[in-house]
Amino acid sequence: MTQAPILVVTTGGTIDKQYFDALSEYQIVESVIGKLLATARVAHPFRIVELLRKDSLDFTDEDRALIAATIAGAPESHVVITHGTDTMTETAAVLATVPGIEGKSVVMCGAMQPARFAETDAPFNLGMAFGCVQAAGPGIWITMSGTVFDALKVRKDRDAGKFVAR
Amino acid sequence: MTQAPILVVTTGGTIDKQYFDALSEYQIVESVIGKLLATARVAHPFRIVELLRKDSLDFTDEDRALIAATIAGAPESHVVITHGTDTMTETAAVLATVPGIEGKSVVMCGAMQPARFAETDAPFNLGMAFGCVQAAGPGIWITMSGTVFDALKVRKDRDAGKFVAR
Amino acid sequence: MTQAPILVVTTGGTIDKQYFDALSEYQIVESVIGKLLATARVAHPFRIVELLRKDSLDFTDEDRALIAATIAGAPESHVVITHGTDTMTETAAVLATVPGIEGKSVVMCGAMQPARFAETDAPFNLGMAFGCVQAAGPGIWITMSGTVFDALKVRKDRDAGKFVAR
Amino acid sequence: MTQAPILVVTTGGTIDKQYFDALSEYQIVESVIGKLLATARVAHPFRIVELLRKDSLDFTDEDRALIAATIAGAPESHVVITHGTDTMTETAAVLATVPGIEGKSVVMCGAMQPARFAETDAPFNLGMAFGCVQAAGPGIWITMSGTVFDALKVRKDRDAGKFVAR
Repeated sequence: MTQAPILVVTTGGTIDKQYFDALSEYQIVESVIGKLLATARVAHPFRIVELLRKDSLDFTDEDRALIAATIAGAPESHVVITHGTDTMTETAAVLATVPGIEGKSVVMCGAMQPARFAETDAPFNLGMAFGCVQAAGPGIWITMSGTVFDALKVRKDRDAGKFVAR
Repeated sequence: MTQAPILVVTTGGTIDKQYFDALSEYQIVESVIGKLLATARVAHPFRIVELLRKDSLDFTDEDRALIAATIAGAPESHVVITHGTDTMTETAAVLATVPGIEGKSVVMCGAMQPARFAETDAPFNLGMAFGCVQAAGPGIWITMSGTVFDALKVRKDRDAGKFVAR
Repeated sequence: MTQAPILVVTTGGTIDKQYFDALSEYQIVESVIGKLLATARVAHPFRIVELLRKDSLDFTDEDRALIAATIAGAPESHVVITHGTDTMTETAAVLATVPGIEGKSVVMCGAMQPARFAETDAPFNLGMAFGCVQAAGPGIWITMSGTVFDALKVRKDRDAGKFVAR
Repeated sequence: MTQAPILVVTTGGTIDKQYFDALSEYQIVESVIGKLLATARVAHPFRIVELLRKDSLDFTDEDRALIAATIAGAPESHVVITHGTDTMTETAAVLATVPGIEGKSVVMCGAMQPARFAETDAPFNLGMAFGCVQAAGPGIWITMSGTVFDALKVRKDRDAGKFVAR
């Protein structure tokens, strides 16, 4: 196993949603990913880049190009991306075509319930990503619903509230 | 990646500790692992075996033989073990010698803070184990402190409160 | 102090909001008040009536009449109401005019953050209401922002995110 | 109702217990009471004095004299004390005899489960104390198990895990 440092790229999504009483709505705010890793007592070397704070349904081509360029240009060969679940696979499809990424281990994850909830899948999913990125070889993976998926062979089943192989 | 079912063996340890006011002390009680997997919305097939409820400092040779036999005899080739952190590596050393385990992917994890705490490393570590067991090949691994370790090349640094490669 | 049983009327509001990934929005769902009281190990006799599940901005005159009739007609003389914060004082003004309520101790509370969040004011506010309803005499009180307010002499300062005397 | 400032005296007890893996035991550490009040968004004026960090079974006569002197000498007429549950009533009996306290409203509370647990009675009990201290007149009260008790007419039923009137 590698002790190689991990790049953590946060892009928003449900995992980082907060509730605002004054608006009676949620908004994506400063990322909780650093706090999750501290609570998990992660001693492994990592670097966090808070790149975007958006619902992934609002991602543009430029947003995806930015994510790809950030990963391709990073010195780290091991990358974890937190991402809204609705278009996670679309971003994965883009990343799979970018030169400079194909030799890296890239794992994407998100959450069905905000990390700020008492009952949330966020820390487990992030842990899966950390375990997968170190153990899997190069490729683009998604860790959701308890499974490590090939990111190009999975879809979100919105009604069932889970990711399933396709 | 495999969609093979995962055997989850719980043996006690800090991860399953509860506080009892009447005794003013902690005790290991019924496992919270099933609840953690439900909160994480795990849809991957798994089976839980609550094997032991002990502090790992109290493990006997018989306890370790029982764990080994349970894993060797199980139909699953992918196994996650929750275990007290103090003697996790000793159990790993035993498992490494048992015929019938060498072809399996076995990942051990625990927690430095009880899963029942608001701030705990339990769900992250369990997530790491789920990610690792699906992505790593056969072998015995430990997922603690944010790192996937070869279980035979790691030790717990009790003073630093983390696992380190050796 | 009285050991008289307490009627707990839930009407919705932020305190009972849940997040739905499939809708990317919050909705008010089955009340968590019973769970909060169980977690708080409340042994005091109480009865819960889940009366409404609405944002208090959507309350109609009929909704307020229903709340008033429920309290006026109840055998309990001590009442706790959970209520959205935006129109809590409007409901209080209605309750203050209803015959059959004036001899009772009525305490209203809610939350600025949903009870399902890891960091929420819900259990503290509900605890304040339980403490106040037993200790205060007849009247209508609001327990928010750490203060026991006369319900007719308080307003929500939406920008400041707290209740203030007026 | 009063907007008078509240003195919060912390003395240790289960409410402030933390788990230490290196010792495989709990210890009473820096108080979480300030954090609980911040999470509850308390805007009411208060002052915290972290007086002791002890299991109340270990309290000496000197400890109780210190608590009494702190309260008697304080400018605040409204006082909340967090205290271990095992000898809370013994401290109350001492406080009841001290000149300079008899005109004040004093409420004692604690917790059966540490505040650092995900499921704890701590914020509710502390909220009860805040509600009671503002609504009740002078006297010494205990807010546990969902009830406001006269502190001189209550006992802890250790086996049942709750406070009961006597």
